[in-house]
Amino acid sequence: MAMEAEARPIIAALGAVETDCAPPLPAKFFVARVLDCEVVVAINGRDPRHDVDSIGTEAAALTTLEVVRRFSPDVLISAGTAGGWQSKDARIGDVYVSRGEFVHHDRRIAIPGFDAYGVGSYPSVDTAALAEVLGLKQGIVTTSNSLDENDDDRRMIAINGGDVKEMEAAAVAYVAELAGVPMLAVKAITDLVDHHTATAEQFAANLAMASSRLAGELVRVIQFLMGSDESPVGNRRSTS
Amino acid sequence: MAMEAEARPIIAALGAVETDCAPPLPAKFFVARVLDCEVVVAINGRDPRHDVDSIGTEAAALTTLEVVRRFSPDVLISAGTAGGWQSKDARIGDVYVSRGEFVHHDRRIAIPGFDAYGVGSYPSVDTAALAEVLGLKQGIVTTSNSLDENDDDRRMIAINGGDVKEMEAAAVAYVAELAGVPMLAVKAITDLVDHHTATAEQFAANLAMASSRLAGELVRVIQFLMGSDESPVGNRRSTS
Repeated sequence: MAMEAEARPIIAALGAVETDCAPPLPAKFFVARVLDCEVVVAINGRDPRHDVDSIGTEAAALTTLEVVRRFSPDVLISAGTAGGWQSKDARIGDVYVSRGEFVHHDRRIAIPGFDAYGVGSYPSVDTAALAEVLGLKQGIVTTSNSLDENDDDRRMIAINGGDVKEMEAAAVAYVAELAGVPMLAVKAITDLVDHHTATAEQFAANLAMASSRLAGELVRVIQFLMGSDESPVGNRRSTS
Repeated sequence: MAMEAEARPIIAALGAVETDCAPPLPAKFFVARVLDCEVVVAINGRDPRHDVDSIGTEAAALTTLEVVRRFSPDVLISAGTAGGWQSKDARIGDVYVSRGEFVHHDRRIAIPGFDAYGVGSYPSVDTAALAEVLGLKQGIVTTSNSLDENDDDRRMIAINGGDVKEMEAAAVAYVAELAGVPMLAVKAITDLVDHHTATAEQFAANLAMASSRLAGELVRVIQFLMGSDESPVGNRRSTS
Protein backbone atom coordinates (compact mmCIF):
# COMPACT_ATOMS: atom_id res chain seq x y z
CA MET A 1 0.00 0.00 0.00
CA ALA A 2 1.20 3.52 -0.69
CA MET A 3 -0.31 5.76 1.97
CA GLU A 4 -0.37 5.29 5.71
CA ALA A 5 -3.92 6.72 5.85
CA GLU A 6 -5.04 4.02 3.41
CA ALA A 7 -3.33 1.30 5.45
CA ARG A 8 -4.28 2.28 9.01
CA PRO A 9 -7.79 0.71 8.98
CA ILE A 10 -6.58 -2.66 7.65
CA ILE A 11 -3.62 -2.70 10.06
CA ALA A 12 -6.10 -2.13 12.90
CA ALA A 13 -8.59 -4.69 11.58
CA LEU A 14 -5.90 -7.37 11.40
CA GLY A 15 -4.17 -6.36 14.62
CA ALA A 16 -0.94 -6.27 12.60
CA VAL A 17 2.28 -5.47 14.46
CA GLU A 18 5.17 -3.47 12.97
CA THR A 19 8.34 -5.44 12.25
CA ASP A 20 11.87 -4.55 11.10
CA CYS A 21 12.20 -1.86 8.47
CA ALA A 22 14.33 -2.10 5.32
CA PRO A 23 16.94 0.64 5.04
CA PRO A 24 17.66 2.55 2.89
CA LEU A 25 13.98 2.27 1.92
CA PRO A 26 11.45 4.11 4.10
CA ALA A 27 9.03 1.15 3.71
CA LYS A 28 7.30 -0.27 6.78
CA PHE A 29 5.97 -3.77 7.38
CA PHE A 30 3.16 -4.89 9.69
CA VAL A 31 2.62 -8.59 10.32
CA ALA A 32 -0.54 -10.39 11.42
CA ARG A 33 -1.85 -13.92 11.49
CA VAL A 34 -5.17 -14.69 9.78
CA LEU A 35 -6.33 -18.28 10.20
CA ASP A 36 -2.98 -20.06 10.06
CA CYS A 37 -1.36 -17.79 7.49
CA GLU A 38 0.95 -14.82 7.87
CA VAL A 39 -0.34 -11.58 6.37
CA VAL A 40 2.12 -8.73 5.81
CA VAL A 41 0.85 -5.20 5.30
CA ALA A 42 3.67 -3.31 3.56
CA ILE A 43 3.51 0.46 3.10
CA ASN A 44 5.98 2.51 1.11
CA GLY A 45 6.69 4.81 4.04
CA ARG A 46 7.40 8.50 4.38
CA ASP A 47 9.66 10.21 1.85
CA PRO A 48 12.54 11.74 3.86
CA ARG A 49 13.04 14.70 1.49
CA HIS A 50 9.40 15.76 1.05
CA ASP A 51 7.80 14.32 4.21
CA VAL A 52 4.82 12.81 2.40
CA ASP A 53 3.83 9.20 1.75
CA SER A 54 5.96 7.60 -0.96
CA ILE A 55 3.31 7.20 -3.65
CA GLY A 56 3.88 6.26 -7.28
CA THR A 57 5.56 3.49 -9.18
CA GLU A 58 9.20 3.73 -8.07
CA ALA A 59 8.42 3.39 -4.38
CA ALA A 60 5.89 0.63 -5.15
CA ALA A 61 8.43 -1.35 -7.17
CA LEU A 62 11.10 -1.03 -4.46
CA THR A 63 8.75 -2.03 -1.64
CA THR A 64 7.48 -5.00 -3.64
CA LEU A 65 11.02 -6.24 -4.27
CA GLU A 66 11.71 -6.00 -0.56
CA VAL A 67 8.50 -7.89 0.30
CA VAL A 68 9.28 -10.62 -2.22
CA ARG A 69 12.81 -11.13 -0.91
CA ARG A 70 11.99 -10.87 2.77
CA PHE A 71 8.67 -12.68 3.07
CA SER A 72 8.46 -14.98 -0.02
CA PRO A 73 4.70 -14.39 -0.30
CA ASP A 74 2.29 -16.87 -1.92
CA VAL A 75 0.27 -13.95 -3.27
CA LEU A 76 0.69 -10.17 -3.52
CA ILE A 77 -2.17 -7.67 -3.24
CA SER A 78 -1.81 -4.07 -4.37
CA ALA A 79 -4.39 -2.39 -2.13
CA GLY A 80 -5.41 1.24 -1.90
CA THR A 81 -7.63 3.97 -3.21
CA ALA A 82 -8.27 4.87 -6.83
CA GLY A 83 -10.32 6.80 -9.32
CA GLY A 84 -13.22 5.37 -11.30
CA TRP A 85 -15.51 6.60 -14.05
CA GLN A 86 -19.20 7.51 -13.78
CA SER A 87 -19.49 6.45 -17.40
CA LYS A 88 -18.53 2.94 -16.27
CA ASP A 89 -20.97 2.96 -13.31
CA ALA A 90 -18.32 3.49 -10.62
CA ARG A 91 -19.50 5.12 -7.40
CA ILE A 92 -17.50 6.65 -4.55
CA GLY A 93 -16.72 3.89 -2.04
CA ASP A 94 -17.01 1.02 -4.52
CA VAL A 95 -14.37 -1.67 -4.02
CA TYR A 96 -12.95 -3.22 -7.19
CA VAL A 97 -10.79 -6.28 -7.67
CA SER A 98 -8.45 -6.42 -10.66
CA ARG A 99 -9.21 -8.39 -13.80
CA GLY A 100 -7.22 -9.08 -16.94
CA GLU A 101 -3.95 -7.17 -17.07
CA PHE A 102 -2.28 -4.34 -15.20
CA VAL A 103 -1.37 -1.49 -17.52
CA HIS A 104 0.47 1.82 -17.50
CA HIS A 105 -1.14 4.81 -19.22
CA ASP A 106 1.78 7.28 -18.94
CA ARG A 107 4.65 5.40 -20.58
CA ARG A 108 4.60 6.36 -24.26
CA ILE A 109 7.58 4.83 -26.05
CA ALA A 110 7.04 4.85 -29.81
CA ILE A 111 9.66 2.22 -30.67
CA PRO A 112 8.48 -1.27 -31.71
CA GLY A 113 8.64 -3.59 -28.69
CA PHE A 114 9.22 -0.76 -26.26
CA ASP A 115 5.66 0.48 -26.90
CA ALA A 116 4.25 -2.75 -25.42
CA TYR A 117 6.85 -2.69 -22.60
CA GLY A 118 5.60 0.81 -21.77
CA VAL A 119 2.04 -0.43 -21.35
CA GLY A 120 3.27 -3.40 -19.31
CA SER A 121 0.26 -5.78 -19.42
CA TYR A 122 1.22 -7.83 -16.38
CA PRO A 123 -1.40 -10.47 -15.45
CA SER A 124 -3.86 -10.31 -12.60
CA VAL A 125 -4.88 -13.61 -11.04
CA ASP A 126 -8.39 -14.63 -12.10
CA THR A 127 -10.72 -12.88 -9.65
CA ALA A 128 -14.05 -13.90 -11.24
CA ALA A 129 -15.09 -16.31 -8.47
CA LEU A 130 -13.79 -14.02 -5.76
CA ALA A 131 -15.73 -11.05 -7.15
CA GLU A 132 -18.92 -13.07 -7.49
CA VAL A 133 -18.80 -14.64 -4.04
CA LEU A 134 -17.89 -11.38 -2.28
CA GLY A 135 -20.09 -9.14 -4.43
CA LEU A 136 -17.23 -6.91 -5.59
CA LYS A 137 -16.84 -5.15 -8.94
CA GLN A 138 -14.09 -6.24 -11.32
CA GLY A 139 -12.01 -3.84 -13.39
CA ILE A 140 -8.84 -3.34 -15.37
CA VAL A 141 -6.43 -1.33 -13.22
CA THR A 142 -4.44 1.35 -15.04
CA THR A 143 -1.47 3.13 -13.43
CA SER A 144 0.36 6.41 -13.83
CA ASN A 145 2.52 8.71 -11.73
CA SER A 146 0.05 11.59 -11.98
CA LEU A 147 -3.12 12.19 -10.01
CA ASP A 148 -4.74 13.95 -12.95
CA GLU A 149 -5.47 12.73 -16.48
CA ASN A 150 -4.41 14.58 -19.62
CA ASP A 151 -5.29 13.95 -23.26
CA ASP A 152 -2.47 11.44 -23.79
CA ASP A 153 -3.54 9.56 -20.65
CA ARG A 154 -7.16 9.53 -21.88
CA ARG A 155 -6.06 8.17 -25.23
CA MET A 156 -3.96 5.40 -23.61
CA ILE A 157 -6.78 4.48 -21.19
CA ALA A 158 -9.28 4.33 -24.05
CA ILE A 159 -6.99 1.77 -25.72
CA ASN A 160 -6.17 -0.29 -22.61
CA GLY A 161 -9.77 -0.33 -21.33
CA GLY A 162 -8.91 0.86 -17.82
CA ASP A 163 -11.75 0.90 -15.26
CA VAL A 164 -9.75 1.82 -12.16
CA LYS A 165 -7.07 4.56 -12.22
CA GLU A 166 -4.35 4.72 -9.60
CA MET A 167 -0.61 5.16 -9.10
CA GLU A 168 1.06 1.89 -8.05
CA ALA A 169 -0.55 -1.38 -9.16
CA ALA A 170 1.29 -1.87 -12.47
CA ALA A 171 4.63 -1.43 -10.68
CA VAL A 172 3.68 -4.02 -8.07
CA ALA A 173 2.52 -6.33 -10.87
CA TYR A 174 5.80 -5.79 -12.76
CA VAL A 175 7.92 -6.96 -9.82
CA ALA A 176 5.40 -9.69 -8.94
CA GLU A 177 5.71 -11.15 -12.42
CA LEU A 178 9.53 -10.93 -12.34
CA ALA A 179 9.42 -12.85 -9.06
CA GLY A 180 6.77 -15.34 -10.22
CA VAL A 181 4.31 -14.39 -7.49
CA PRO A 182 0.54 -14.34 -8.30
CA MET A 183 -0.87 -10.84 -7.84
CA LEU A 184 -4.16 -9.00 -7.70
CA ALA A 185 -5.35 -5.53 -6.73
CA VAL A 186 -8.13 -4.41 -4.40
CA LYS A 187 -8.99 -0.72 -4.86
CA ALA A 188 -11.61 1.52 -3.25
CA ILE A 189 -12.91 4.46 -5.28
CA THR A 190 -12.23 7.92 -3.81
CA ASP A 191 -12.90 10.01 -6.90
CA LEU A 192 -14.66 10.00 -10.25
CA VAL A 193 -12.27 10.92 -13.05
CA ASP A 194 -15.13 12.19 -15.24
CA HIS A 195 -16.76 14.33 -12.51
CA HIS A 196 -16.54 18.12 -12.70
CA THR A 197 -14.94 18.33 -9.21
CA ALA A 198 -11.11 18.23 -9.23
CA THR A 199 -9.61 14.83 -8.43
CA ALA A 200 -7.51 16.17 -5.53
CA GLU A 201 -10.61 17.68 -3.88
CA GLN A 202 -12.67 14.46 -4.22
CA PHE A 203 -9.70 12.42 -3.00
CA ALA A 204 -9.32 14.48 0.18
CA ALA A 205 -13.05 14.34 0.91
CA ASN A 206 -13.37 10.57 0.48
CA LEU A 207 -10.00 9.11 1.56
CA ALA A 208 -11.05 8.13 5.10
CA MET A 209 -14.36 6.57 4.05
CA ALA A 210 -12.84 4.69 1.12
CA SER A 211 -9.93 3.41 3.25
CA SER A 212 -12.39 2.10 5.82
CA ARG A 213 -14.44 0.37 3.09
CA LEU A 214 -11.19 -1.00 1.66
CA ALA A 215 -10.18 -2.52 4.99
CA GLY A 216 -13.49 -4.33 5.40
CA GLU A 217 -13.35 -5.84 1.94
CA LEU A 218 -9.63 -6.66 2.20
CA VAL A 219 -10.29 -8.84 5.23
CA ARG A 220 -12.94 -10.72 3.24
CA VAL A 221 -10.60 -11.03 0.22
CA ILE A 222 -7.77 -12.38 2.39
CA GLN A 223 -10.09 -14.91 4.02
CA PHE A 224 -11.36 -15.97 0.59
CA LEU A 225 -7.82 -16.40 -0.79
CA MET A 226 -6.87 -18.56 2.18
CA GLY A 227 -10.01 -20.48 2.83
CA SER A 228 -11.97 -21.02 -0.34
CA ASP A 229 -11.90 -23.97 -2.69
CA GLU A 230 -12.36 -21.35 -5.40
CA SER A 231 -9.29 -19.36 -4.34
CA PRO A 232 -7.26 -18.41 -7.42
CA VAL A 233 -4.03 -19.00 -5.53
CA GLY A 234 -4.93 -22.33 -3.95
CA ASN A 235 -6.48 -23.17 -0.60
CA ARG A 236 -3.82 -21.88 1.79
CA ARG A 237 -5.59 -23.21 4.86
CA SER A 238 -5.39 -26.79 3.74
CA THR A 239 -1.92 -26.61 2.23
CA SER A 240 -0.02 -24.63 4.86
CA MET B 1 22.57 2.23 -17.48
CA ALA B 2 19.31 1.24 -19.13
CA MET B 3 20.17 -0.21 -22.53
CA GLU B 4 22.75 -2.82 -23.42
CA ALA B 5 23.58 -0.92 -26.63
CA GLU B 6 24.38 2.16 -24.55
CA ALA B 7 26.57 0.13 -22.18
CA ARG B 8 28.51 -2.06 -24.59
CA PRO B 9 31.16 0.54 -25.53
CA ILE B 10 31.99 1.45 -21.92
CA ILE B 11 32.06 -2.23 -20.87
CA ALA B 12 34.55 -2.82 -23.68
CA ALA B 13 36.59 0.30 -22.89
CA LEU B 14 36.96 -0.74 -19.24
CA GLY B 15 37.42 -4.43 -19.98
CA ALA B 16 34.64 -5.08 -17.46
CA VAL B 17 33.70 -8.67 -16.70
CA GLU B 18 30.17 -9.87 -15.96
CA THR B 19 29.54 -10.98 -12.39
CA ASP B 20 26.59 -12.59 -10.55
CA CYS B 21 23.11 -11.44 -11.48
CA ALA B 22 20.37 -10.47 -9.03
CA PRO B 23 17.22 -12.54 -9.40
CA PRO B 24 14.35 -11.82 -9.68
CA LEU B 25 15.68 -8.69 -11.37
CA PRO B 26 17.00 -9.03 -14.93
CA ALA B 27 19.80 -6.56 -14.08
CA LYS B 28 23.38 -7.39 -15.07
CA PHE B 29 26.63 -6.24 -13.48
CA PHE B 30 30.06 -5.87 -15.07
CA VAL B 31 33.10 -5.21 -12.90
CA ALA B 32 36.41 -3.58 -13.82
CA ARG B 33 39.37 -2.05 -12.03
CA VAL B 34 40.38 1.51 -12.91
CA LEU B 35 43.50 2.72 -11.10
CA ASP B 36 42.98 1.02 -7.74
CA CYS B 37 39.21 1.36 -7.61
CA GLU B 38 36.42 -1.02 -8.55
CA VAL B 39 34.04 0.23 -11.22
CA VAL B 40 30.70 -1.55 -11.65
CA VAL B 41 28.71 -1.09 -14.84
CA ALA B 42 25.12 -2.05 -13.98
CA ILE B 43 22.49 -2.39 -16.69
CA ASN B 44 18.80 -2.97 -16.08
CA GLY B 45 18.73 -6.05 -18.27
CA ARG B 46 16.22 -7.55 -20.66
CA ASP B 47 12.53 -7.52 -19.75
CA PRO B 48 11.40 -11.16 -19.79
CA ARG B 49 7.82 -10.36 -20.91
CA HIS B 50 8.58 -7.93 -23.73
CA ASP B 51 12.16 -8.91 -24.66
CA VAL B 52 13.47 -5.34 -24.75
CA ASP B 53 15.87 -3.45 -22.49
CA SER B 54 14.27 -2.50 -19.17
CA ILE B 55 14.17 1.26 -19.62
CA GLY B 56 12.33 3.76 -17.43
CA THR B 57 12.18 4.65 -13.79
CA GLU B 58 10.98 1.44 -12.14
CA ALA B 59 13.79 -0.70 -13.53
CA ALA B 60 16.30 2.08 -12.78
CA ALA B 61 15.17 2.34 -9.15
CA LEU B 62 15.33 -1.44 -8.66
CA THR B 63 18.79 -1.77 -10.22
CA THR B 64 20.10 1.14 -8.17
CA LEU B 65 18.84 -0.42 -4.93
CA GLU B 66 20.59 -3.65 -5.88
CA VAL B 67 23.85 -1.81 -6.69
CA VAL B 68 23.74 0.11 -3.42
CA ARG B 69 23.19 -3.03 -1.35
CA ARG B 70 25.61 -5.24 -3.20
CA PHE B 71 28.51 -2.93 -3.96
CA SER B 72 28.26 -0.05 -1.40
CA PRO B 73 29.47 2.46 -4.02
CA ASP B 74 31.24 5.72 -3.13
CA VAL B 75 29.50 7.41 -6.05
CA LEU B 76 26.70 6.52 -8.49
CA ILE B 77 26.59 7.64 -12.13
CA SER B 78 23.43 7.47 -14.20
CA ALA B 79 24.90 7.16 -17.69
CA GLY B 80 23.17 6.87 -21.03
CA THR B 81 21.66 8.69 -23.96
CA ALA B 82 19.21 11.57 -23.84
CA GLY B 83 17.43 14.32 -25.69
CA GLY B 84 18.54 17.94 -25.77
CA TRP B 85 17.16 21.19 -27.16
CA GLN B 86 18.47 23.18 -30.11
CA SER B 87 17.11 26.24 -28.35
CA LYS B 88 19.62 25.53 -25.58
CA ASP B 89 22.51 24.95 -28.01
CA ALA B 90 22.55 21.16 -27.66
CA ARG B 91 24.00 19.20 -30.57
CA ILE B 92 23.77 15.51 -31.41
CA GLY B 93 26.70 13.74 -29.73
CA ASP B 94 27.20 16.35 -27.00
CA VAL B 95 27.99 14.84 -23.61
CA TYR B 96 26.42 16.56 -20.60
CA VAL B 97 27.09 16.16 -16.90
CA SER B 98 24.30 16.88 -14.44
CA ARG B 99 24.05 20.09 -12.46
CA GLY B 100 21.66 21.24 -9.76
CA GLU B 101 18.81 18.83 -9.16
CA PHE B 102 17.32 15.77 -10.82
CA VAL B 103 13.66 16.29 -11.62
CA HIS B 104 10.67 14.37 -12.98
CA HIS B 105 8.45 16.05 -15.57
CA ASP B 106 5.66 13.45 -15.72
CA ARG B 107 4.54 13.18 -12.10
CA ARG B 108 1.73 15.72 -11.66
CA ILE B 109 0.25 15.42 -8.17
CA ALA B 110 -1.76 18.54 -7.31
CA ILE B 111 -1.84 18.03 -3.54
CA PRO B 112 0.36 20.29 -1.35
CA GLY B 113 3.61 18.46 -0.51
CA PHE B 114 2.95 15.70 -3.03
CA ASP B 115 3.45 18.21 -5.87
CA ALA B 116 7.08 18.71 -4.82
CA TYR B 117 7.50 14.96 -4.21
CA GLY B 118 6.33 14.41 -7.78
CA VAL B 119 9.07 16.67 -9.15
CA GLY B 120 11.63 15.02 -6.88
CA SER B 121 14.53 17.53 -6.90
CA TYR B 122 17.23 15.13 -5.80
CA PRO B 123 20.70 16.68 -5.72
CA SER B 124 23.49 16.15 -8.23
CA VAL B 125 27.04 16.37 -6.92
CA ASP B 126 28.72 19.63 -7.95
CA THR B 127 30.15 18.97 -11.39
CA ALA B 128 31.42 22.50 -12.13
CA ALA B 129 35.14 21.66 -11.88
CA LEU B 130 34.66 18.33 -13.64
CA ALA B 131 32.81 19.99 -16.55
CA GLU B 132 35.43 22.73 -16.87
CA VAL B 133 38.46 20.44 -16.75
CA LEU B 134 36.97 17.88 -19.15
CA GLY B 135 35.26 20.41 -21.44
CA LEU B 136 31.78 18.95 -20.97
CA LYS B 137 28.45 20.76 -20.96
CA GLN B 138 26.45 20.95 -17.76
CA GLY B 139 22.67 20.64 -17.61
CA ILE B 140 19.67 19.93 -15.44
CA VAL B 141 18.53 16.39 -16.15
CA THR B 142 14.76 15.86 -16.35
CA THR B 143 13.20 12.40 -16.38
CA SER B 144 9.95 10.81 -17.56
CA ASN B 145 8.71 7.39 -18.62
CA SER B 146 7.87 8.56 -22.14
CA LEU B 147 10.17 9.03 -25.11
CA ASP B 148 8.02 11.86 -26.43
CA GLU B 149 7.04 15.18 -24.86
CA ASN B 150 3.46 16.41 -24.59
CA ASP B 151 2.08 19.79 -23.50
CA ASP B 152 2.06 18.87 -19.79
CA ASP B 153 5.66 17.67 -20.06
CA ARG B 154 6.65 20.90 -21.81
CA ARG B 155 4.99 22.95 -19.08
CA MET B 156 6.77 20.99 -16.32
CA ILE B 157 10.15 21.23 -18.10
CA ALA B 158 9.69 24.99 -18.57
CA ILE B 159 9.28 25.25 -14.79
CA ASN B 160 12.09 22.88 -13.78
CA GLY B 161 14.58 24.27 -16.32
CA GLY B 162 15.51 20.89 -17.79
CA ASP B 163 18.37 20.83 -20.33
CA VAL B 164 18.70 17.07 -20.80
CA LYS B 165 15.63 14.81 -21.18
CA GLU B 166 15.81 11.11 -20.50
CA MET B 167 14.06 8.22 -18.74
CA GLU B 168 16.02 7.07 -15.67
CA ALA B 169 18.22 9.61 -13.88
CA ALA B 170 15.69 10.96 -11.36
CA ALA B 171 14.90 7.39 -10.26
CA VAL B 172 18.59 6.63 -9.76
CA ALA B 173 18.96 9.92 -7.87
CA TYR B 174 15.93 9.07 -5.69
CA VAL B 175 17.45 5.79 -4.50
CA ALA B 176 20.93 7.34 -4.28
CA GLU B 177 19.64 10.01 -1.91
CA LEU B 178 17.74 7.44 0.18
CA ALA B 179 21.01 5.51 0.48
CA GLY B 180 23.16 8.59 1.07
CA VAL B 181 25.35 7.97 -1.97
CA PRO B 182 26.60 10.99 -4.01
CA MET B 183 25.29 10.83 -7.55
CA LEU B 184 25.72 12.48 -10.94
CA ALA B 185 24.62 11.81 -14.49
CA VAL B 186 26.60 11.65 -17.73
CA LYS B 187 24.34 11.78 -20.80
CA ALA B 188 25.08 11.82 -24.53
CA ILE B 189 22.59 13.53 -26.81
CA THR B 190 20.90 11.27 -29.41
CA ASP B 191 18.02 13.54 -30.35
CA LEU B 192 16.86 17.12 -30.34
CA VAL B 193 13.45 17.44 -28.69
CA ASP B 194 12.67 20.65 -30.63
CA HIS B 195 13.68 19.24 -34.03
CA HIS B 196 11.01 18.41 -36.62
CA THR B 197 12.23 14.80 -36.96
CA ALA B 198 10.46 12.36 -34.59
CA THR B 199 12.45 11.52 -31.45
CA ALA B 200 12.33 7.77 -32.09
CA GLU B 201 13.80 8.24 -35.57
CA GLN B 202 16.65 10.48 -34.37
CA PHE B 203 17.30 8.11 -31.46
CA ALA B 204 17.70 5.09 -33.75
CA ALA B 205 19.98 6.99 -36.12
CA ASN B 206 22.30 8.32 -33.41
CA LEU B 207 22.31 5.65 -30.67
CA ALA B 208 25.56 3.94 -31.70
CA MET B 209 27.52 7.18 -32.23
CA ALA B 210 26.25 8.73 -28.98
CA SER B 211 26.99 5.56 -26.98
CA SER B 212 30.53 5.53 -28.32
CA ARG B 213 30.99 9.23 -27.41
CA LEU B 214 29.48 8.47 -23.99
CA ALA B 215 31.99 5.68 -23.33
CA GLY B 216 34.96 7.90 -24.13
CA GLU B 217 33.79 10.69 -21.83
CA LEU B 218 32.73 8.25 -19.08
CA VAL B 219 36.27 6.92 -18.84
CA ARG B 220 37.54 10.48 -18.42
CA VAL B 221 34.83 11.26 -15.82
CA ILE B 222 35.67 8.12 -13.82
CA GLN B 223 39.37 8.97 -13.89
CA PHE B 224 38.60 12.53 -12.78
CA LEU B 225 36.39 11.34 -9.91
CA MET B 226 39.12 8.99 -8.70
CA GLY B 227 42.20 10.96 -9.35
CA SER B 228 41.60 14.68 -9.15
CA ASP B 229 42.04 16.98 -6.19
CA GLU B 230 38.94 18.71 -7.54
CA SER B 231 36.85 15.50 -7.48
CA PRO B 232 33.43 16.27 -5.99
CA VAL B 233 33.41 12.91 -4.22
CA GLY B 234 36.95 13.06 -2.82
CA ASN B 235 40.23 11.80 -4.18
CA ARG B 236 39.61 8.07 -4.29
CA ARG B 237 43.15 7.22 -5.35
CA SER B 238 44.72 8.76 -2.28
CA THR B 239 42.08 7.63 0.20
CA SER B 240 41.50 4.03 -0.89
